Order: sequence, then structure tokens, then C-alpha cells
Amino acid sequence: MEYTEMIKGIKKPENALLVAAQHKIDHKTKPLGALGMLEDIACRMCLIQNDLEPRIKKKMLFVYAGDHGIANEGVSAYPAEVTPQMVLNFLGGGAAINVLCKHNDIDIRIIDAGVNFDFKPQKGLVQKKVRKGTDNFLKGSAMTRDEAERSIQNGIDVFNEAYPEGDGGIIAVGDMGIGNTTSASAIISAVTGKDPKETTGSGTGINESTLKRKIDTIKNALSKHAPDPGDPLDILSKVGGFEIGGITGTVLAAAHRGVPVVLDGIISTAGGLLAYLFNNNAGEYLFAGHKSVEKGHMAALDHMHLNPIIDLNMRLGEGSGAALAVNIIEAACRIMCEMASFEEAGVSNKE
Amino acid sequence: MEYTEMIKGIKKPENALLVAAQHKIDHKTKPLGALGMLEDIACRMCLIQNDLEPRIKKKMLFVYAGDHGIANEGVSAYPAEVTPQMVLNFLGGGAAINVLCKHNDIDIRIIDAGVNFDFKPQKGLVQKKVRKGTDNFLKGSAMTRDEAERSIQNGIDVFNEAYPEGDGGIIAVGDMGIGNTTSASAIISAVTGKDPKETTGSGTGINESTLKRKIDTIKNALSKHAPDPGDPLDILSKVGGFEIGGITGTVLAAAHRGVPVVLDGIISTAGGLLAYLFNNNAGEYLFAGHKSVEKGHMAALDHMHLNPIIDLNMRLGEGSGAALAVNIIEAACRIMCEMASFEEAGVSNKE
Repeated sequence: MEYTEMIKGIKKPENALLVAAQHKIDHKTKPLGALGMLEDIACRMCLIQNDLEPRIKKKMLFVYAGDHGIANEGVSAYPAEVTPQMVLNFLGGGAAINVLCKHNDIDIRIIDAGVNFDFKPQKGLVQKKVRKGTDNFLKGSAMTRDEAERSIQNGIDVFNEAYPEGDGGIIAVGDMGIGNTTSASAIISAVTGKDPKETTGSGTGINESTLKRKIDTIKNALSKHAPDPGDPLDILSKVGGFEIGGITGTVLAAAHRGVPVVLDGIISTAGGLLAYLFNNNAGEYLFAGHKSVEKGHMAALDHMHLNPIIDLNMRLGEGSGAALAVNIIEAACRIMCEMASFEEAGVSNKE
Repeated sequence: MEYTEMIKGIKKPENALLVAAQHKIDHKTKPLGALGMLEDIACRMCLIQNDLEPRIKKKMLFVYAGDHGIANEGVSAYPAEVTPQMVLNFLGGGAAINVLCKHNDIDIRIIDAGVNFDFKPQKGLVQKKVRKGTDNFLKGSAMTRDEAERSIQNGIDVFNEAYPEGDGGIIAVGDMGIGNTTSASAIISAVTGKDPKETTGSGTGINESTLKRKIDTIKNALSKHAPDPGDPLDILSKVGGFEIGGITGTVLAAAHRGVPVVLDGIISTAGGLLAYLFNNNAGEYLFAGHKSVEKGHMAALDHMHLNPIIDLNMRLGEGSGAALAVNIIEAACRIMCEMASFEEAGVSNKE
């Protein structure tokens, strides 16, 4: 693989500032630990940036879109044509993720990773189509191993084009693709070894009998393909999606560059999980933007030891939870940079 | 009481738009309910503003500070001098709440509701001192009934001065006062009837033996004073604080004007609870900014049927959780205003 050396080169953040960062946050004018998770985020950002004054300058969210052959099994509440329709909605600025990115001043990029539609070239759309949707993975592999590699390489390229060398900041990742919770749940089961019953939820809102069919579909596919739980490319090619491969590539490239990544719901987290499987060190750059209602999401987060920042019973994808979490990560950085210490403020510390 | 008629006049929001708001959010380009709590917030904001395009223009956070005679019982981890020191820190811009308000573009007002210190008049400080701290409520009433009324009237005046007639938007409330979790827990026990064991936590970080003393202090005070669970003034005067009375007044005045209020942790929620006790309709304008680590906070929120927006294991007060939640409430309003419907975007709805 072209990118093998890059993936091997992902390093844990320096921990030279571990003690200093904790000391700094502990001496801010507040009771010890009173800012809870904001403090953990602030300290992690210090280590990731190797700087006691972590700052977020550039913010960008990447929405990867792709179609799924598995949608033919009737596992979704929506028809497959919704994938391109929603991509057009993203490009037109009318989707939830557009509103949330605008609200938190996050730049947005829409990537056609494999949508079953010919989009005209246009502003904001990044063309990285591997193919017009995966194959039905109940019948064969979702994609070839070569296509899986290309989808990852595309994700790497997308990151590198958007964040030229020297650019810092933070990124978030989101997804669109009818059928993709089925693929994500299959990936999470393959990596964690958990039964599909434990990793499969109602997606966009299916009923009980469709949910049963969805679980059976995943069970049958995993038993047919027996993906190697240690080989992310094997898993991606057998039950994955082009947008998930793109997310994996973007996570890997960002981690390699030391840029933190905010994951969203079950799809982008499945992409993050594959990146983590390539190299556990990538996990050190991940933040779990939110806790999705979707079953299986927490299994993937637990596997990577990530705690979700927001929990608003959301299950939309697109990067919506991640976009909200970016504001909180920024707040944590500003606490570390701007809040006064007991000494600076002349406030008495604990008796 | 001067303000009795005003309190009686607090009305529930019009519900003329109840069906229309739900219909509008249901037809946005997303699966039904997929934005979870954001959707509930958006609909509530429509009703509060009686407008299907809810907008937040003016954002202000009020930090009420006051000292507590009960601090003499050794119920806090910090010395009482920290109250004025922290007020000076707020005024100097170095506290967590300054950073978080700046981050989310929220204007801030610091109110001396009863701090044991003579502050020089200065920008950003609102002088509404009832007295230099309450009395030790283990020995007698925290304040007279007249002082309780004055603290509430002060809170009403603070709101009305900051939000002249015609000004809309949203407000948030926070607190500072060494010893005030003891007062807040006592209030919550008095209103909900819950045993102080169920409503009392470690505040700024006390050890087990101090926690036991704190619980016993509250138990003894409640048994000595037997505050009338239906009379907020009786509760406030017997075991309350001047900053809590101020918060109660501000909540009442905002609710009367139809301006939503974001509560923070256990102290501001105790203030909100007293406002709710004055007139349950005030609860319709309240948002629970976050879920505090502090035991007793959820008991008060449950009593008012409020669900916390953020849960980051915070326990700082000052309005810190509320300031973060304001960004999410704004996001919800923007979703309602700016996101496209299926029809507008030409996206197929559920099959």
C-alpha cells in the first residue's frame, strides 16, 4: 500500500507536558476538577498540540457520502435515492449539518466517495468517487481490496488537500449514505467481536421486523465472509462502504499530522475504529463528539476508550453531533489559555 | 409584596403554534426525531417566542454573589473570603464564566447580592447588596422575611434594567457564594420533601466527615425552622441566600416577560425552584443548562420536569454549564429557522 509507511508513522502525542498541563488546570481559579470533562479535553489538547496554550484556528468538517448495495435488502427506512438528494441538499446549504457548521463557524466539505449519481462539478463538492455504490455484501464482498485501499487513499488526499502541511486546528467527520448503519454495525461487530444484536439499531427509524432483518443480514454476512478482526482492509472490503473508507483515511492522515479529529455517530465512529485498528496510536487524536441513540455506537467508543462529549439523543449522522462538540472543545482550550490561576487572581486556594 | 401582581401575571407560553412547530420540525430533511433534544428545544423556543422562527438576539448571563453565615459551620472546602475574591476575579475577566461567556458571545453582569465586602463601584458590577451575608441558619433564620423580599425585588430590578421592555433574547443565571450549596440543598429538601442525604453533595470538594457535618447541619436546620414547603418566602428567609433570592427574582421577571432562562447548577436551580414555587408557570420558561455532579441538582430538575442539556461532570457553578448550553439552544433555534424541508430540498421522505 502506498500509505503503509504513513500509517506506521502515526505517533502518540508527546507527553512531555502531561504533568505541566494537569498542574496548570489544577491551579485555575476553581475547585479541583470542577470543570469535569472540559479539563480532560483541555489537557488532551495540550498534549496533542504539545503546547500549554492549545488553540483551535482552522475548523473543518468533512461529510463523506456513498451508496450501499446492502440497501437492496430493505434494511433502511428511506429509499437509496435519498443519498444523492441529501448531497445536493448539503451543497445547497439546507441540511442540519450546514446549519450547525455555520453556527459554530466550521468550514464544510462534501465528498462524493461513491454515490450512485453523476454530480456536476461545483463549489464545495470534492469528487472522489470510487464507484457508484458498493455491492450487496450479503451476496459478495462490498468492494474489492483494491477499492478499499483507494477509498482510504482518497480520504488521505482529501485531508491533505484541505489541510496543507503547516495548517493546524481541528477536524470533524460525518457521513451520508442510505444503508450505511448496516455497514457500520457489521464493521463494529467484526472488530469488537460483539454479536450483531448488540451493535445494530434502528438507523433512520425502521420498525421491529425490519430491524430483525437488518440484524440477520449482518449475521449472515459476517458468517459468510468471516472478516479478519485484525485486518481493517479485509473488514472494509467485505462489509464496508466507500464513505467509511474515506473517513478512515482522513482520520489516519489527520492523526499522522497531529490534528485532532471529532467523530460523530456510528458511521464515522466505525471509520475511526478502522483507523484505530490500523494503528492504535490514531486513537489518541480522536474525540467522541456525541453519544448516538444508535445501538453499537457506544461499543465502538468503548473499544477505543473514548467518552462522548454530548448526549442529546441524536441519531442523524452527517457530523451533526461532532459539529456541536467542536464548540465545547474550543471552550476547553480557551479555559486553558485564558482563565486566571489562583495566584494571578489573588484568590485563596482550598483550606 | 410589591411584585405579587407581577408573579400572578406569569402566564404559560401561548400554545397556538404547538402543532405547527412540531409539523415544521418533522418536515425538515432528517429522519423523524433524529435531532433528539435539539428538536424539543426548538419547539419550546417557538412556543416561548410564539414564533415559528425563534431567534436569540440578546444573550446575557447574571452571576449573583452572596455570603452565607452557615459557612461558619465548616461546611465548605474554601474560606469565606473567596466569595469577594472571586467577585473581583469575575470583574477582572479571569474566571471560568468570563471565558465561557466570551466564547459564546454572552454579555455578563456580576451582581453583589450580599457579599461581605465593600466593592468600589466599577463597570460590570451591579450593586444590590441586601446585607453583608446571611446569618448562620443553624442558629436562627438566614434572613428576615423583609430581606428575602428585597433580595427577590433586587433580582427583578436587575433583569428589568438589563432587559428594558421590548428586548427579547435569552438569559442565563449563575452564582458565587462560599457555603451556598448548603443553602441550596436545604431549599431543595424543603421544597421536594427529600431527605438531606438525597440532596446534599460535596460542593467544592469536601471530605466524607465534612459531608456528614453538612448533611447534619441541613437536617438540624430544617427540623428547627420547619419551613413551609408551599411558601417560597418562608423557605428563602429561613435557609436561603441573598444570591439565591436574586436569581429567583430574575427568573420571575424574565418569565413574566416571556424571556427564557437557562439554569446552571444546584444553586441557580434552587433559585429557579423557588420561582417555580411562586408560580409553576415560570417553569415553562426554564431550560436546565447542564447536569451537575452535585447531588440534589437532579432532584430539583425532576421536580420541575426539566432535562439537562449538557452533562460534562461539572460542578463549578458561576453559570458555567448554562453558558455552554446557550450555544446548543441557539443551534436548535437556527435548525428551526434555517434548515430545509423535504419539499424545499427535493428530498424523498420515508417510504
